Amino acid sequence: MKANYPLWWASNLHIRRRGSMANKNYQQLTRTFLRLSRFSHLSAIASWDMFAMMPPGGSTARGDALAELSVLEHQILTSPDVSRWIAEAAQEDLNDVEQANLREMTRLHTQAAILPASLVEDKSLAGSRCEHAWRSQRPANDWQGFSVNLKEVVKLSREEARLRAGAKGCSPYDALLDIYEPDMTSAQLDGLFADIKSWLPDLLRRVVEKQAQQPLIAPVGPFPIAVQRELGLETMSMLGFDFNAGRLDISAHPFCGGVPEDVRITTRYDENELLSALFGVIHETGHARYEQNLPRNWLGQPVALARSTAIHESQSLFFEMQVGRSTEFLQQLLPAVKRHFGDQAAFDEQNFIAWNQRVKPGFIRVDADEVSYPAHVILRYEIERALINGDIEVEDIPALWNEKMQAWLGLSTEGNDRNGCMQDIHWTDGGFGYFPSYTLGAMYAAQLFSAASRALPDLNQQMGCGDFSALFEWLRQNIWQHGSRFTTEKLIAQATGEALSSRYFRAHLESRYL
Amino acid sequence: MKANYPLWWASNLHIRRRGSMANKNYQQLTRTFLRLSRFSHLSAIASWDMFAMMPPGGSTARGDALAELSVLEHQILTSPDVSRWIAEAAQEDLNDVEQANLREMTRLHTQAAILPASLVEDKSLAGSRCEHAWRSQRPANDWQGFSVNLKEVVKLSREEARLRAGAKGCSPYDALLDIYEPDMTSAQLDGLFADIKSWLPDLLRRVVEKQAQQPLIAPVGPFPIAVQRELGLETMSMLGFDFNAGRLDISAHPFCGGVPEDVRITTRYDENELLSALFGVIHETGHARYEQNLPRNWLGQPVALARSTAIHESQSLFFEMQVGRSTEFLQQLLPAVKRHFGDQAAFDEQNFIAWNQRVKPGFIRVDADEVSYPAHVILRYEIERALINGDIEVEDIPALWNEKMQAWLGLSTEGNDRNGCMQDIHWTDGGFGYFPSYTLGAMYAAQLFSAASRALPDLNQQMGCGDFSALFEWLRQNIWQHGSRFTTEKLIAQATGEALSSRYFRAHLESRYL
Repeated sequence: MKANYPLWWASNLHIRRRGSMANKNYQQLTRTFLRLSRFSHLSAIASWDMFAMMPPGGSTARGDALAELSVLEHQILTSPDVSRWIAEAAQEDLNDVEQANLREMTRLHTQAAILPASLVEDKSLAGSRCEHAWRSQRPANDWQGFSVNLKEVVKLSREEARLRAGAKGCSPYDALLDIYEPDMTSAQLDGLFADIKSWLPDLLRRVVEKQAQQPLIAPVGPFPIAVQRELGLETMSMLGFDFNAGRLDISAHPFCGGVPEDVRITTRYDENELLSALFGVIHETGHARYEQNLPRNWLGQPVALARSTAIHESQSLFFEMQVGRSTEFLQQLLPAVKRHFGDQAAFDEQNFIAWNQRVKPGFIRVDADEVSYPAHVILRYEIERALINGDIEVEDIPALWNEKMQAWLGLSTEGNDRNGCMQDIHWTDGGFGYFPSYTLGAMYAAQLFSAASRALPDLNQQMGCGDFSALFEWLRQNIWQHGSRFTTEKLIAQATGEALSSRYFRAHLESRYL
Repeated sequence: MKANYPLWWASNLHIRRRGSMANKNYQQLTRTFLRLSRFSHLSAIASWDMFAMMPPGGSTARGDALAELSVLEHQILTSPDVSRWIAEAAQEDLNDVEQANLREMTRLHTQAAILPASLVEDKSLAGSRCEHAWRSQRPANDWQGFSVNLKEVVKLSREEARLRAGAKGCSPYDALLDIYEPDMTSAQLDGLFADIKSWLPDLLRRVVEKQAQQPLIAPVGPFPIAVQRELGLETMSMLGFDFNAGRLDISAHPFCGGVPEDVRITTRYDENELLSALFGVIHETGHARYEQNLPRNWLGQPVALARSTAIHESQSLFFEMQVGRSTEFLQQLLPAVKRHFGDQAAFDEQNFIAWNQRVKPGFIRVDADEVSYPAHVILRYEIERALINGDIEVEDIPALWNEKMQAWLGLSTEGNDRNGCMQDIHWTDGGFGYFPSYTLGAMYAAQLFSAASRALPDLNQQMGCGDFSALFEWLRQNIWQHGSRFTTEKLIAQATGEALSSRYFRAHLESRYL
């Protein structure tokens, strides 16, 4: 094993110079993965377009085109050549970064090789169809129509999970979980979530009771969409988003897409809501800054990809919750709000802060406060795990959803599936196993913020002056620049000095809300 | 040879049913070309995005991604399999539409097989680089900077032309011309353009003199861009654009892109100009309606593609010039203009019509009136032919441009390259051979409009009531629905009863302007 080269040494030039020498299998792999990353670039942009720009009539052709490319990518990734190069590259003389790259290549290859091309194509097509129909079925509260498409998606996802589980020797759901958060298991998750379940309901009750003592003045709209957008762009600038390498647009479900060189984030606006679109923007800006700051010299290689979806969520929640809803940030935001929308009673500083830190259990996950958010996630986790493991069927979802929402948040979704199990697109494309990432992300975010606070003694004061540069530099050094170089476990241990724990999340909630 | 099936019989289902039988080579080809069309879908959307949406920082990665896909498409299109299937399909039992499809497949295969993959990739990369740099070089009037990139493009285009010419046994320029207008030669063009040169300078002089007698009131701005956009969308609706299958956006150079199921048109706005963006929209709407009405049952196959760039231009100019600047259409447009921008002296009906039919030689081709337009085209044709045939070099362009602009339109572009040879993007991606399509298109459009008028005796009256349905239905039946089923020569002869002639164009100009 070679010395641990710093990332900035590991330029493409360096790869090429070595290419003619001892690492020829590894070099073949880097060329192949670079090619794949270029195809992924086109899928990423065409997918963003599908959600943010495409008129309905383009749907079938777009679904076909994306499926065709995903079949091609699957063929390349699972080719016997790649298999052989991986086996032989393991014997080659690789530095640490190259070894990490080979580990990630191996993971991607193995995960893909398990699935037959026909399943990949069918899943892509079924996902496009389900998502596209959802756009009109959700407003129409048409669960019957939606469930027809969803059953097909679930059928294909179960088949996928069965194949993956067979290869890995785990439960079907754990096999899907591993795609999004490598090495995570439902046993580990159950432990973490059991802890949360042991204190969250009581905490939630106490916070709601406490806040009920403090009557709030609600902001009075309308808040014109164009002005909300302006405020969003300004806030993205304040948070360091690089507009030379990204955009803000609108889609039914906010997301962060595109490629590291050109990150596309979206939000959705409601004229009657002051800040829900803005906090969507702040959330996606966290995702975006991670992407924009992945290691440049390795872009196009798997080692340059974000570590996992949970780490990705930790960055968006770091921005939205740790930073965005902090008293210091809200104090910075208020003058900009007044400048854009004029003054009103609700914009008294204390009221404005309390309003943006209010806890109010509701139907919609993406609009949820951070105290009730884990309820949304654990609910979905329990349903999707049962669904994939074959313990329940699609027909059972609405009743289970209603039952769990009642138990956690005291809300009924009976006959209101549009705000229940049809509220977002996560399941439409078979993304089962993704949901736990949100609460893992919240836990990572709290743990990272706590570590950053220890490393940066002036952080509170800096944030009070609207200066987030040291904080973001800490994130860049500890998370962003490493891409997938380390396992999640090692990345977090290096950054925070310990393994993932739910106690920082609990401490954060108690300190902000009690 | 089988009976000439109407196009609506020729569904994909029909292709598949025959697939198991006698036409197995042809069936392999249809599958391969369908796959290629799906990759082209992604290129088309990513290219549209590059011009209409992408931030500058995405440029390099996008160029790389598009080049990678174009290399793949080239590999597939030129594979020995395709070569063999084409040879063997020629012996198979094909109906007329299938034979036309095979003819178009053969043309695409042969054209692509001439070029080595490395040249295709180099050209794509050089084109992206040149276009991207042009965006800032044009406003800076930076010919020196631009010419560095353009030289590389010209070098590669000459290499392409040399290879194509060798295979076809024609001059280098004719070999490029054939890509855009199959079977057209510069000898034929010289004949058509010589006729135009024999009467246009005098006609132009007489029109300018006549219009000088008639003082016009100029519309007074500003005309807010958001309102211009509204008017554009409304006009697109009036002209039958299907918004379920397309969009209107902004780019530096207006174009029509996307795919038939999702056509993306763009325009550019100037707050001080009343209708230049709108006529750009009307022009692109002509392109768009052709794309949106290509034969649905054959989409994905070469026979469903638009016939040629000249026929494409004939549709945009049909919309912009034959329809859009007609007195009848302008009478329909005026109330909408007043509704959007309020009334003013310039909106007197007679003045408004005369203003939109005014002839004023200017620098910018895309803003040119239809009388001086051929001057812009013939100028570029003469320069690009000499450039590709090796008679001049890139350094010679500005002086030649200036000399020809002086001769044709009495305008100097000395030291004003931004409004001279750097005014548009056609040459940046090596699209030499395209320019003549504009004036061919103007001639086709006039000839088609004349034929439609003969076929539709109530046309003038219908247009006077804002009813364009019979006219567009005539276009659909005579041009749009045929895709590439017939050669251009046959398509035009069927639609108009004779071969292409410049006399309808001359008659149109004389009747409208003298």
